[in-house]
Amino acid sequence: MPTISKKGHLMPESPIRKLVPYAEQAVKEGKSIYHLNIGQPDIKTPEIALEAVKNNDVEILSYSRSQGSETYRIKLTAYYKKHNINVSHEDIIVTVGASEALLFLFSSIIDPGDEVIISEPFYANYIAFSTATGVNVVPAICNIDDNFALPSIETFEKLITPKTRAILICNPGNPTGYLYSEEEIKQLGAIAKKHDLFLIADEVYREFVYDGNKHFSVMELEDLEEHTIIIDSVSKRYSMCGARIGCLVSKNKIVMQTVLKYAQARLSPPTYAQIASEAALDTPQSYFDDVIIEYVERRDTLITELQKIEGIKIAKPKGAFYCMVELPIKNSDNFAQWLLEDFDVDGETVMVAPAGGFYSTPGIGLNQIRIAYVLNKESLIKAVNILKEALKVYKD
Amino acid sequence: MPTISKKGHLMPESPIRKLVPYAEQAVKEGKSIYHLNIGQPDIKTPEIALEAVKNNDVEILSYSRSQGSETYRIKLTAYYKKHNINVSHEDIIVTVGASEALLFLFSSIIDPGDEVIISEPFYANYIAFSTATGVNVVPAICNIDDNFALPSIETFEKLITPKTRAILICNPGNPTGYLYSEEEIKQLGAIAKKHDLFLIADEVYREFVYDGNKHFSVMELEDLEEHTIIIDSVSKRYSMCGARIGCLVSKNKIVMQTVLKYAQARLSPPTYAQIASEAALDTPQSYFDDVIIEYVERRDTLITELQKIEGIKIAKPKGAFYCMVELPIKNSDNFAQWLLEDFDVDGETVMVAPAGGFYSTPGIGLNQIRIAYVLNKESLIKAVNILKEALKVYKD
Ligand SMILES: Cc1ncc(COP(=O)(O)O)c(C=O)c1O
Ligand SMILES: Cc1ncc(COP(=O)(O)O)c(C=O)c1O
Repeated sequence: MPTISKKGHLMPESPIRKLVPYAEQAVKEGKSIYHLNIGQPDIKTPEIALEAVKNNDVEILSYSRSQGSETYRIKLTAYYKKHNINVSHEDIIVTVGASEALLFLFSSIIDPGDEVIISEPFYANYIAFSTATGVNVVPAICNIDDNFALPSIETFEKLITPKTRAILICNPGNPTGYLYSEEEIKQLGAIAKKHDLFLIADEVYREFVYDGNKHFSVMELEDLEEHTIIIDSVSKRYSMCGARIGCLVSKNKIVMQTVLKYAQARLSPPTYAQIASEAALDTPQSYFDDVIIEYVERRDTLITELQKIEGIKIAKPKGAFYCMVELPIKNSDNFAQWLLEDFDVDGETVMVAPAGGFYSTPGIGLNQIRIAYVLNKESLIKAVNILKEALKVYKD
Repeated sequence: MPTISKKGHLMPESPIRKLVPYAEQAVKEGKSIYHLNIGQPDIKTPEIALEAVKNNDVEILSYSRSQGSETYRIKLTAYYKKHNINVSHEDIIVTVGASEALLFLFSSIIDPGDEVIISEPFYANYIAFSTATGVNVVPAICNIDDNFALPSIETFEKLITPKTRAILICNPGNPTGYLYSEEEIKQLGAIAKKHDLFLIADEVYREFVYDGNKHFSVMELEDLEEHTIIIDSVSKRYSMCGARIGCLVSKNKIVMQTVLKYAQARLSPPTYAQIASEAALDTPQSYFDDVIIEYVERRDTLITELQKIEGIKIAKPKGAFYCMVELPIKNSDNFAQWLLEDFDVDGETVMVAPAGGFYSTPGIGLNQIRIAYVLNKESLIKAVNILKEALKVYKD
């Protein structure tokens, strides 16, 4: 019997996916589950995007351009301009989600065996994309005690080796909710410049910034045009995860030419989704205002409720819609499974994301979970109460 | 300045893309171009698929399942059954085109430095996917003189080394139009079994089979369930290239689990496109009958016209919609460029695909071009006439 590749063996499974069979079993047994585990917002997609697809006049659903439709890319430049990011449409390649942008970028700028420094904890699939491309992840470990702020420059620079090719941050962060300050971004820029590294920012949560803070993009940095690259997506911005449209933005022409070769090999991004994404750019500001108000209320509700639980630590999120919580337990994989298998309050339980998968450093974060506040406030209150009751009886 | 990866440098550019600037310039100068170079059919997408998207009732465009929507996969099993391929929906993973299926599959079953034998000439992007995954392509060279039939078993077996992990064929073939006989597929199956190799068939042109021939799939082979894998797509079948929906089909559970890990990392295939693809499965047989009649007429027209040109060799296609032609020239890259830059008949010229990019063996196929008969008959006649006039005056 022919066998799969070593690389295929090494590909990680998402820690959340491992829980899915237990969740399915729980549902079969009649339990209902509050899903605090997912990054799928319950927010409605802007009407203007949905309507554009319903009213499309496609007759032959042809390949679009590999770099994405020209009208969409041109319109995107105006969006970026509003965010103080000055780019031309030639600095943009439309991808199948931020996911594809990350995969193509890793392959384009980092050879197998070379290294990317990623602030940790990080979006779990970064590990999947680095495994798929043979890239080694070097974590810059951040700490829940200071809300996952960047480690000091000295600590950071110690991680740089001759094999380092890039630094990757997620801003605001999944799973941390951390928002990098302009100062921190400038420090990273200085490190990238000094050591000739690419500085990649995954900014898919750009809009989700709270408490009057301002998002500062790596592409606002001056004199770093050859170094900075943005990974972006419509998934969270417009609650359009199923569109599968993202993009990669950079002024580095050689990077763009290289990523384009990958994009050409896969022919084109999806047409209907580009129609939706282009239309979504006309979403009124009121939509975002409402969404931000909703998320801030959810976050505040979540934190108020969590603070009622003894012995836990909370990293207060300044952006995105995730919250990292340290629990008085040993292993959150086991705890998350136990919640689904063996616990309920009046037939209800919660599903959380164990944080182990957000760390590449073994043994760190095992007592942490990530809570996505993608549910309405009432559900959040109930869900946190279940968590509280669970911790009263749970034994590792 | 940070630099891109060695792998990024190695990524090939499509030979057709290189011609695009010349084509754009020609258009600027007022020439019109017959595009014989592309795999984008001019056939209308089935109304039933277009309507399904227009009438969709999505309110939150959420991620679908990573393996593709369950209803679509279940409905696909009935489609395959009609084609004598017996699979369950668990043997299917929906991908972003056949392109993504190929990329994930190479990564799942072949390690960097290991080998895949591909019958040559082949779809140019096979080289891109193998470069992206570090896989070495070993060509099984086929010859225009026997319409690109498979080389003898003895020749084929000589290509197998300890590093060989898989055999990949395209059936019917792009760029050859070759349709493998049941006998040939069985021979390949025997080789795969004997040497413990995967046997991958790219069957995206399954429906496009002419002259009363029958397509025989690798998954019709008995006793080879662990070895055989189909790569598939809606792109050509329903003239839905812009949907970006394909799939990977296999009964090998470990292969499926591994490919699924890649699929999970990129979250999900596009939702609107899955709606279109699911609806397209109800396309009436008359649609295909009409399309086949049209393509047969086009092929016959094309060949009749080509035969009027002296000194050329034609591989008569039994399937797909491509035709390989050997010209009395030295280098078809130069010829194709010259056609765009320096030649026209009454302001009209043709764009063809130079065949060099369909070969990994250096120096082979340089006097060949691929003609896609995706234009109506009248245009084909005019286009071939331009080719004929061009060859009268062209000097290498
Ligand atoms: C930080 C981050 N980057 C990238 C992605 C992938 O997004 P997309 O849906 O655009 O592929 C996600 C999705 O959750 C994410 O959280
Ligand atoms: C043989 C072959 N395989 C795969 C593909 C890629 O198709 P898709 O649009 O499904 O990615 C093509 C497209 O032309 C092709 O000709």
